[in-house]
Amino acid sequence: MMAGLEWGCHNECTAEGCSGETAKHITESFKASELIITPATTFKEKPDPSGLVFGTVFTDNMLTIEWSLASGWEKPYIKPLENLSLHPASSSLHYAIELFEGMKAYRGVDGKIRLFRPTLNMDRMARSAKRATLPCFDQNELLECIRKLVEVEKEWVPYSTAASLYIRPTLIGTEPSLGVKKPTKALLYVILSPVGAYFASGSFNPISLWADPKYVRAWKGGTGDCKLGGNYGSSIYAQQEALELGCQQVLWLYGEDHQITEVGTMNLFLYWINEDGENELATPPLDGIILPGVTRQSILDLARDWEEFKVSERYITMSDLTAALEENRVKEMFGAGTACVVCPISKILYKGKHLHIPTMENGPQLTTRFLNKLSDIQYGREDSDWAVLVS
Amino acid sequence: MMAGLEWGCHNECTAEGCSGETAKHITESFKASELIITPATTFKEKPDPSGLVFGTVFTDNMLTIEWSLASGWEKPYIKPLENLSLHPASSSLHYAIELFEGMKAYRGVDGKIRLFRPTLNMDRMARSAKRATLPCFDQNELLECIRKLVEVEKEWVPYSTAASLYIRPTLIGTEPSLGVKKPTKALLYVILSPVGAYFASGSFNPISLWADPKYVRAWKGGTGDCKLGGNYGSSIYAQQEALELGCQQVLWLYGEDHQITEVGTMNLFLYWINEDGENELATPPLDGIILPGVTRQSILDLARDWEEFKVSERYITMSDLTAALEENRVKEMFGAGTACVVCPISKILYKGKHLHIPTMENGPQLTTRFLNKLSDIQYGREDSDWAVLVS
Repeated sequence: MMAGLEWGCHNECTAEGCSGETAKHITESFKASELIITPATTFKEKPDPSGLVFGTVFTDNMLTIEWSLASGWEKPYIKPLENLSLHPASSSLHYAIELFEGMKAYRGVDGKIRLFRPTLNMDRMARSAKRATLPCFDQNELLECIRKLVEVEKEWVPYSTAASLYIRPTLIGTEPSLGVKKPTKALLYVILSPVGAYFASGSFNPISLWADPKYVRAWKGGTGDCKLGGNYGSSIYAQQEALELGCQQVLWLYGEDHQITEVGTMNLFLYWINEDGENELATPPLDGIILPGVTRQSILDLARDWEEFKVSERYITMSDLTAALEENRVKEMFGAGTACVVCPISKILYKGKHLHIPTMENGPQLTTRFLNKLSDIQYGREDSDWAVLVS
Repeated sequence: MMAGLEWGCHNECTAEGCSGETAKHITESFKASELIITPATTFKEKPDPSGLVFGTVFTDNMLTIEWSLASGWEKPYIKPLENLSLHPASSSLHYAIELFEGMKAYRGVDGKIRLFRPTLNMDRMARSAKRATLPCFDQNELLECIRKLVEVEKEWVPYSTAASLYIRPTLIGTEPSLGVKKPTKALLYVILSPVGAYFASGSFNPISLWADPKYVRAWKGGTGDCKLGGNYGSSIYAQQEALELGCQQVLWLYGEDHQITEVGTMNLFLYWINEDGENELATPPLDGIILPGVTRQSILDLARDWEEFKVSERYITMSDLTAALEENRVKEMFGAGTACVVCPISKILYKGKHLHIPTMENGPQLTTRFLNKLSDIQYGREDSDWAVLVS
């Protein structure tokens, strides 16, 4: 199986006092071998995995690592989950100097706990850090710290192949002053949350999208390809309008020709017969406004490996889609992301019209195949170098 | 003097459980009359106003007001400045559900303390809150709470007409869960910082700008016209590049034709002889990507009141500017914002060329006139209904 990175790590360090060379960059990182582990001695009750609301329950411990321009990275700590004590001028609270990642740990059918392609998350986190002018770090050291945290919390990984332990690495500016500038203090932390389905509608129930060009998620020259907080906060107003119109999520459009981009919490895929009569799995290209999702990349890698149909990173406009719907050329449409895995799409509200997407009528064959394949790897039913053992 | 609002308050409340009607909206706000004031009993040393670095020193007390969907607004508190205790999943730290305002209190030559057009800040804050899906509040009640806080801290208002007390109202989502959604908990707080000049170069020293279309601050359908944290965090990477190129700030361009927009911390004004041979003061229009600055509005209001030259909110492209520079039609260019007041611009680095802007050679007459006029109002040398007495 191909594990090639389409978007590599470009973590030249830009922090002051950091040369940008790999050797120095690594020396200046925190070290997993220096972890100080003082775990919780009282334990919360673990919830029933079937009743979980996404991201509302947290485990007993967290990972924290402090950074300052003056002293570099401090030692990493695994310690009881607690509130952060932040100066009210902290640059994360005023200027959104902040980023996050989303990954999951899965309890396999063999009882072993696995992460899924975690180096892709670490690489993306390093690129987000650069874009946010937050400090660089050694991705392998962070991954090892996270592995240790999951190991400490292993009883929190749900005993279920319909649930997992969501991992939320976060990096925030804690500069305690109000000038708009690169922070001289930062905090990296990781919290864990046992989760079931992302959408309240449940796993693999089709969702509806609202597509309106009046709100734009990201733009060329902006930060849409990094996992910065600002990309999300600006999206919720439109999300509210989608809910009022009876849709679950926003399908973000871009440009005069209403290009289909992504859903904010998911990348988008269209499986169809394209304009040239070919069977094609299409998703928008990584041109700067699309988040390079790990699930997106994995679906592309799988489909290219299968060599059964054309696989394209290409522009798709709303008129491409509506024409294909009229001509019965659309087979399936689905979202893909770590939180939801894959999620079938059954309806798009666009220009006041409800476009019916026949995803469910068509099985959904391909969507289900991706879900099964990814689940088989994640839950250890199939061997793969995409799965990294925690313990 | 005209005090007309070009951009009014559109604070229809969108919070769940809020009807959106003014009466209910006001009932549901916190009340300044319910303020609980327990001020600090130990006091920090007040710094020499001449040596202040912007936003690094804070006063002894702060204002905090908590909100939850379940209970609405709690009572407002004025209490000693302290770190915030935030759940590590807080939506401000992950999804940048946060906004701020910037205002100043001035100690007048008559010893009285004044705010400058504070209702404009309150209105903008309410609009930012709506865009960020944060709770609505009664602007007059918040203004009265701020007035009380400044009163408590009145000895922190510098005894200087070259300094002031910067006021930073902040509203953050404190929802302690990871779903991307409208927060059910929020915190409004206000901190105060005595400040001198915003730029390290000092007051009224000309600054240089870097104009490159590869980074874009804001776009139509986004949040550039609101004071949300995400607009700022995404800008610092470009700001670093500007510094490396020897420029102090970024001049953000927009569109294929490289429209001049703003500087992120300031709006922009060009005083020139326009294409039709008219003396004109021009600034980009509020088309959704420009922050509606209070200083910007005040300069427009003053200039329109004077009726001495044409005053325009119009598009200006980099080629408009370079043509005017070649034809010696540019008189002055300056930034305008609460932090810097007005700031002359002497150089723009664009397409590898240093464009010299002859602002300083031309006095700068108009820039100085605005500075003096605004200062006269702010420091009580001139009566104006733009100045609101604190005590």
